[in-house]
Amino acid sequence: MSREAAFIAALRGLATHPGARGLVDDCAVLDIGDETLVLTHDAMAEGVHFLPEQDPADVAWKLVASNLSDLAAKGAEPLGVLLGYQFGTDDARFLTGLEDVLAHYGVPLLGGDTISATGPQVLGLTALGRATHRPVPSRAGAKVGDGLWITGPVGAAMLGFEALRDGTGADSTAFSRPLALLAEGWALAPQVTAMMDVSDGLLLDASRMARAAGVTFAIDSAAVPIATPEARRAEALRWGEDYQLLFTLPDGMEPPITAHRIGTTHAAEEALVVLDGIPLTEANGLGYEHS
Amino acid sequence: MSREAAFIAALRGLATHPGARGLVDDCAVLDIGDETLVLTHDAMAEGVHFLPEQDPADVAWKLVASNLSDLAAKGAEPLGVLLGYQFGTDDARFLTGLEDVLAHYGVPLLGGDTISATGPQVLGLTALGRATHRPVPSRAGAKVGDGLWITGPVGAAMLGFEALRDGTGADSTAFSRPLALLAEGWALAPQVTAMMDVSDGLLLDASRMARAAGVTFAIDSAAVPIATPEARRAEALRWGEDYQLLFTLPDGMEPPITAHRIGTTHAAEEALVVLDGIPLTEANGLGYEHS
Repeated sequence: MSREAAFIAALRGLATHPGARGLVDDCAVLDIGDETLVLTHDAMAEGVHFLPEQDPADVAWKLVASNLSDLAAKGAEPLGVLLGYQFGTDDARFLTGLEDVLAHYGVPLLGGDTISATGPQVLGLTALGRATHRPVPSRAGAKVGDGLWITGPVGAAMLGFEALRDGTGADSTAFSRPLALLAEGWALAPQVTAMMDVSDGLLLDASRMARAAGVTFAIDSAAVPIATPEARRAEALRWGEDYQLLFTLPDGMEPPITAHRIGTTHAAEEALVVLDGIPLTEANGLGYEHS
Repeated sequence: MSREAAFIAALRGLATHPGARGLVDDCAVLDIGDETLVLTHDAMAEGVHFLPEQDPADVAWKLVASNLSDLAAKGAEPLGVLLGYQFGTDDARFLTGLEDVLAHYGVPLLGGDTISATGPQVLGLTALGRATHRPVPSRAGAKVGDGLWITGPVGAAMLGFEALRDGTGADSTAFSRPLALLAEGWALAPQVTAMMDVSDGLLLDASRMARAAGVTFAIDSAAVPIATPEARRAEALRWGEDYQLLFTLPDGMEPPITAHRIGTTHAAEEALVVLDGIPLTEANGLGYEHS
């Protein structure tokens, strides 16, 4: 186990509250009075999660949208966000993007902190929501026999990233201003047995969902909707940042919104994901881990 | 107005939710169901808010305690914290301090995120609490005639900092492991007209409280309890990080806990704070602003 993995495991050991379902990669869920809160916090660093040459307005958008996507996967309605902001090279552009994304989702900025520091810009965002359905969907609920579904295509963010990187002038919106599928999450929450958003790549995130439930997912790669040419299907299944919702439903149940069935839940095998009959491992094509 | 001040002002402009009382230097207050939430987020950077040579366990302690102190000033009971952690030089020591402070206050770690990045370590913490009394004390409620009170001495953190810096071996606990006065905040919340914690220096924080209410505080410096020798009284009134609670009570009312009356609320004068009859300005001895 890496030093980082050991630290995260120790943090999880500290997070003994029953609502702390999956520190670092999942939301916290907390009952208060007659409501259930859902909380998530993401940190992003310049040079790791965004590039110095990226438009700070897009950085602000993604910081907020990626956290709201975590709430979407819990069927939660956003109540507000708190921002931890380290001053950067173009704070006015950041503010513009922040205003855009908060207005787009009708989510208030509740508070936060600003700091001046040397070194790469580090940003943090906490999003707070209320559950629209209880129990709040977990990522651990998949049952043997359940269908595995996804809300839409993967690979669009990859194409957007490449357009931006190569300056082709092609549309990069899917990468620079991803959408949080809040309405889809609300519609799905009462029906799903498990749900999460696909931020790190379909196969890697599916393997996490399988591990959480102690099952294996058999995925039919041809059934996965992709935004790329067919030749790049394998990459599209491994690239992240599309923020589609991945969920399981009892076999035979149809989702209340447009979605695509891409696989089936099996009893646990050695591999967490079996793709077109081939067991995948971390060393063998699941995707990239980045913290 | 500095670039930073302009940014903060613009952020406040975005924070139009009625619960977003004072972005950056105050908590957010949010009604949900039959409860009222109190939220605060602080960011801390190595080299600015803590030094590379400081014990990471103490850094963890202060990160949590300073946020809990914000909740204390609202009379809020902590429900949990979310941590944004950038890996540093001694993560195990950080974890030890985090465990210590969470156990001390009986507060759960609910979630968070970890990142690897180059450059100085940047940390963020969000603390969530529930109001024990409503309305939640504001920092803006001081009325003309109200007494101005403080829970205990200032200057202890300054002495602790010096002990650490100079390696004298004297006790540095007041600086390295400050306490959040939660029980005091709960006892005071039903009675105070205004309350805040003193994190940036008594005179500077008192001036903020005066500005928020549109009043002037007349402070009797000799009445302020100090932890330092008498010769250093002026410094003690300006050094921060003691996390005492500063509050106002209607004239004649005694607080339910041990506290010290240090002044009186006057109608607004040109200066926000008048110390022993001398009007203070930012250029003239209020203290230091640091973001």
